[in-house]
Amino acid sequence: MNHRMILFILSRVLLAEAVLLAGSAFVGLLYGESVLLTFGVPVALLLACAAVMWCFKPRSHDFYARDGMVAVSLAWILMSAFGALPFWLSGYMPSYVDCFFETVSGFTTTGASVLPAVEHLPRGLLFWRSFTHWIGGMGVLVFLMAIIPLAGDRSMHLMRAESPGPSVGKLVPRARTSALILYGMYCALTIAQIIFLLAGGMPLFDSVVHTFGTAGTGGFSIKNTSIMAYNSPYAEIVITVFMLLFGVNFSLYYLVLVRRPLEALKSEELQWYLGFFAAVTLLIAFNIRDMYDSFATALRHAAFQTSSIITTTGYATTDFNLWPEFSHALIILVMIVGACAGSTGGGFKVSRVVILVKSIRREVYRMLHPRAVAHIKFEGKSLDTEIVHGVLVYLGLYVIIAMVSALLVALDGYDHTTTVTAVLSALNNVGPGLGEVGPMGNYGLFSAVSKLVLSADMLIGRLEIIPLIVLCTPSVWRRR
Amino acid sequence: MNHRMILFILSRVLLAEAVLLAGSAFVGLLYGESVLLTFGVPVALLLACAAVMWCFKPRSHDFYARDGMVAVSLAWILMSAFGALPFWLSGYMPSYVDCFFETVSGFTTTGASVLPAVEHLPRGLLFWRSFTHWIGGMGVLVFLMAIIPLAGDRSMHLMRAESPGPSVGKLVPRARTSALILYGMYCALTIAQIIFLLAGGMPLFDSVVHTFGTAGTGGFSIKNTSIMAYNSPYAEIVITVFMLLFGVNFSLYYLVLVRRPLEALKSEELQWYLGFFAAVTLLIAFNIRDMYDSFATALRHAAFQTSSIITTTGYATTDFNLWPEFSHALIILVMIVGACAGSTGGGFKVSRVVILVKSIRREVYRMLHPRAVAHIKFEGKSLDTEIVHGVLVYLGLYVIIAMVSALLVALDGYDHTTTVTAVLSALNNVGPGLGEVGPMGNYGLFSAVSKLVLSADMLIGRLEIIPLIVLCTPSVWRRR
Repeated sequence: MNHRMILFILSRVLLAEAVLLAGSAFVGLLYGESVLLTFGVPVALLLACAAVMWCFKPRSHDFYARDGMVAVSLAWILMSAFGALPFWLSGYMPSYVDCFFETVSGFTTTGASVLPAVEHLPRGLLFWRSFTHWIGGMGVLVFLMAIIPLAGDRSMHLMRAESPGPSVGKLVPRARTSALILYGMYCALTIAQIIFLLAGGMPLFDSVVHTFGTAGTGGFSIKNTSIMAYNSPYAEIVITVFMLLFGVNFSLYYLVLVRRPLEALKSEELQWYLGFFAAVTLLIAFNIRDMYDSFATALRHAAFQTSSIITTTGYATTDFNLWPEFSHALIILVMIVGACAGSTGGGFKVSRVVILVKSIRREVYRMLHPRAVAHIKFEGKSLDTEIVHGVLVYLGLYVIIAMVSALLVALDGYDHTTTVTAVLSALNNVGPGLGEVGPMGNYGLFSAVSKLVLSADMLIGRLEIIPLIVLCTPSVWRRR
Repeated sequence: MNHRMILFILSRVLLAEAVLLAGSAFVGLLYGESVLLTFGVPVALLLACAAVMWCFKPRSHDFYARDGMVAVSLAWILMSAFGALPFWLSGYMPSYVDCFFETVSGFTTTGASVLPAVEHLPRGLLFWRSFTHWIGGMGVLVFLMAIIPLAGDRSMHLMRAESPGPSVGKLVPRARTSALILYGMYCALTIAQIIFLLAGGMPLFDSVVHTFGTAGTGGFSIKNTSIMAYNSPYAEIVITVFMLLFGVNFSLYYLVLVRRPLEALKSEELQWYLGFFAAVTLLIAFNIRDMYDSFATALRHAAFQTSSIITTTGYATTDFNLWPEFSHALIILVMIVGACAGSTGGGFKVSRVVILVKSIRREVYRMLHPRAVAHIKFEGKSLDTEIVHGVLVYLGLYVIIAMVSALLVALDGYDHTTTVTAVLSALNNVGPGLGEVGPMGNYGLFSAVSKLVLSADMLIGRLEIIPLIVLCTPSVWRRR
C-alpha cells in the first residue's frame, strides 16, 4: 500500500474540512455568535494535523483500488472525528460519542439525530450540521478531485470508492473533469432549490439549510418538527420534487446537459425509480386516506414521505409512526430499496434491485433451459457477470451486517421495531425509523455502544461496505 | 412436459395419502372414536381421484428436472388440500382455509397452528396432524421412491426437487436405494426417540406424536402449552438432543452406518451447526439467567428453545416471548439460519450460510488481488460456481418473497413484530414467532388472505422456492 500517498490525500481532506468549518464559522459571525472556541479550535487542530501529514511527500505514484478504498475510509472517519468537535466544544452536547454520531449522521447524509430539540442551537452550528449533508452527498474526495490533482490519473480509484452504485463510470474520459461536471450540476440544482424555497416565503437561512439537507438527501432540519413546522404545502411540494431530483443518477443530468434528454428518459433505473415512487405513494395515500381531511392532503403527505424515504432523506411533514401497519411495511420496503446509483441518495439502490430481479429471472430460465445461453441486459447493455456477482455478494454482506448490528443494538433492550428500523435506517442512510426512532423521536436513547454500532452502519451504508472491509483487512496493511 | 407421467406420479401420491389416512383412522378406532365421516370420506375421495388419474398411462419415459419440480409442487399442494378434509369434516374447524393452513403447516413441518387449544380434539385427528410432520419431514416422494419405481432412473429429479439444500446428492448410485436407506435411518431414529420418551414415563400416544413432531422438525403438540405441559426435564433433554439430531444432514448418518464416523465429524456444516447452536445457547442462557431459579434451568430452557428454533421445530418449554430483546434477536437469527441441508429441518440452511460467508470472503480477496485465482472450498471440495451463484440467487429470492409476504400480511394491521416474525416463521418452517404468534399464541387471528399467503410461504420454504416458481411459469405448461 502507498502509505505516503494516502497521507498526502488525507492532508488535503483535513485542509478542506478546515476551510469548510471556517465557512460555517463565518455564518455564525454574521449572526453575531461567538465562534472562537466552537470553530476556532477545531480549525487550528485540523490545520496542525494537515501540516504534519503534508511533510510526507509521496515517493511513488502507484495507487491501486485498495489504496483508494483505504484513503476514502480513513478520510470519512477522520472528517467525522474532527467535524464532531464544534458540537462538543459548543457545550450543547456533552458526550463526544453523541457528537461523533451526529457528525457521521451528517456526512453520511443519514440525518439521524441524538438531539431531542435543535431550535436553541446557534446558527453557526446549525449551518455546519446541515453543511455536512451537502458535502457528504456528492462526496468530499470527488470535491477535492474537482479542484486539485489528487492521485494523478489514478484518482478514479477514489471516485469509485466514494460514489455509490454497482458500477461507477466517468462522465467524460478525464476523472477530474467528471468530478468538476458533477459538482457543477450539484451546485446548479442546489441554487435552483434555494430560489424556489425563497420564492415561497421561507427565510434565507432556512432555505439554505433545508436545501443542503435535500441536496445531500440528508434530512437534518433546524426545526424540531422538521418540514411540518412550516405548514406550507408549497414548500412541501418543492422539497418533494427536489428530493426526487437529487435521488436520480447524476449522469442522466449530464445527458440532458449535452442535449441527449431522450436517452436520459430511456434509463431503466429512472423508470423503475419513478414507477416505484408512484406506486408506493398511491398505495400509502389510499391506506391513510381516512387520517386526513381530504384525499389530496393524504396524497401530498404520502408523496412527501415516500420521496423522503426512497431518496433516504428523512424529512417529515407528518408523524408516519401513526400510520397503519401496511404503510409501515411499505416505508421499510422503500427504505431498503433506496435511490438511484450515482445519486446522493443511499439504500441498496434501485439498479441493484433491478439487477437482482433480472438475475433471478435468468436463473429460473436457465433451470428450465439448461442448454440455453441467457444474458442479463440492463440499460441496453449486456451485464458483466462480475457486476451481477458483485450485487449478489453485496446483498449477502448487507443482510449479515444488518443482522449482527441488530443483535448488538438489541442489547439495549428496546422493542423489536425500534431496534430493527434504527439499524435499517442507519445502514440505508435514511434518518428516521419507526417506534422510538420515528420521525418525531430521536436516537438519544441508545447506549454509547449502540451509537457507535449505528455510526459504523451509517459509514458502511454510505461507502457501500467494501472500502471499510478493505480498511479492516490486516493483509492490506502489511508492507511489501 | 410429460403430463401423463406427472399424473401417474400424482395418482401414486394420492393413493399413498389414502393409506396414511387409513392408518390414522385406525388409531382413532383403537381409541373408540367414530372415524367414518372424518376419515372415511377423504379416503374414498382420494381413492376415486387416484383411480381416475391411474387411467392415464405415461407414453414416454422422458422426465426432466422441470417435470420433477412440477410433480413435487403439485403433489404437495394436492396432499395438503386433501389432507385438510379430516379437520374440516370433523367439525372442529369450520373454515376450510384454516384446515388447509393447518395441513400445509403439518406437511411442511412448520407447526404453526390456528387452533388456540388442541387437547379436546379426537385422538385420530391429533395423530393425523402430527403424522403429517413425519411424512413431510423426509418427503412423501422420497418415501414413494423407496417403495415403488416412480419415474424409472429419472426419479432423481423428484428427490432433488423435494430435498432441501444447495446441492442434493445420492448416498449410493441408485436413487431408489438412496431413498430406502434415508427412510431406514429416519425410522430407526424415530423408534429410538419413542423408546427414550417412553423410558421417561411419557404415555405411548404422547411419545409417538411428539416424536413425529421432533423427527419432521415440525412442532405440533397435543398439549396447549407444548412440551412445557409435561414439566419433565428428562423429556426436555431427550427432545433437545433429538431435535438437534434430526437437524443434521442424513448423509452423515450414512457415513456412520458404513463405519466412516470420522469423516462425518469432519463435516464443515456439522461443525458450524453445532458451534452456532452452542454459541447461541450460551448467549441466551446468560441473557435470561435472572428469569429462572438457577443458571442450569436457564441453560436448559435456552438449549431447548435454541435447538427447537435452529432446527425449525417450534416446540417450547417456556414462553420466550417474555425474554429480553437480545434473546429475541438471537431467536430471529437462528430462525433464518435454520438446520443442515439434507436434514428434515427448514430455514436458509447452515451450508448456504457458510457458502455465503465464504463467497463474500473470496470477493473481498479478489478485490484486493485482482489477478489472483480464488476458489471456494467447502467440505474439502472446490465449490462449483453454479452452486455459489445458486445460493446467492436463493438469498435474493428469499429476501424478495419475505418482503412481499410481509407487505400482504401487514394489511391485517397487526404490529410489526407479529407481521414480520409470522412471515419469517412460515418461510423457514419454524412455527412460533414473536408477539401475537409467540409460542403460546396462535395464527387464528389472521385473515383468510394472510393465512393463504403464509400457507404459500410455508410451501415455498419447504420446497425451497424454485419448484413453485417453475410451477407458476406459463412457458413450462405449453405443449410442444
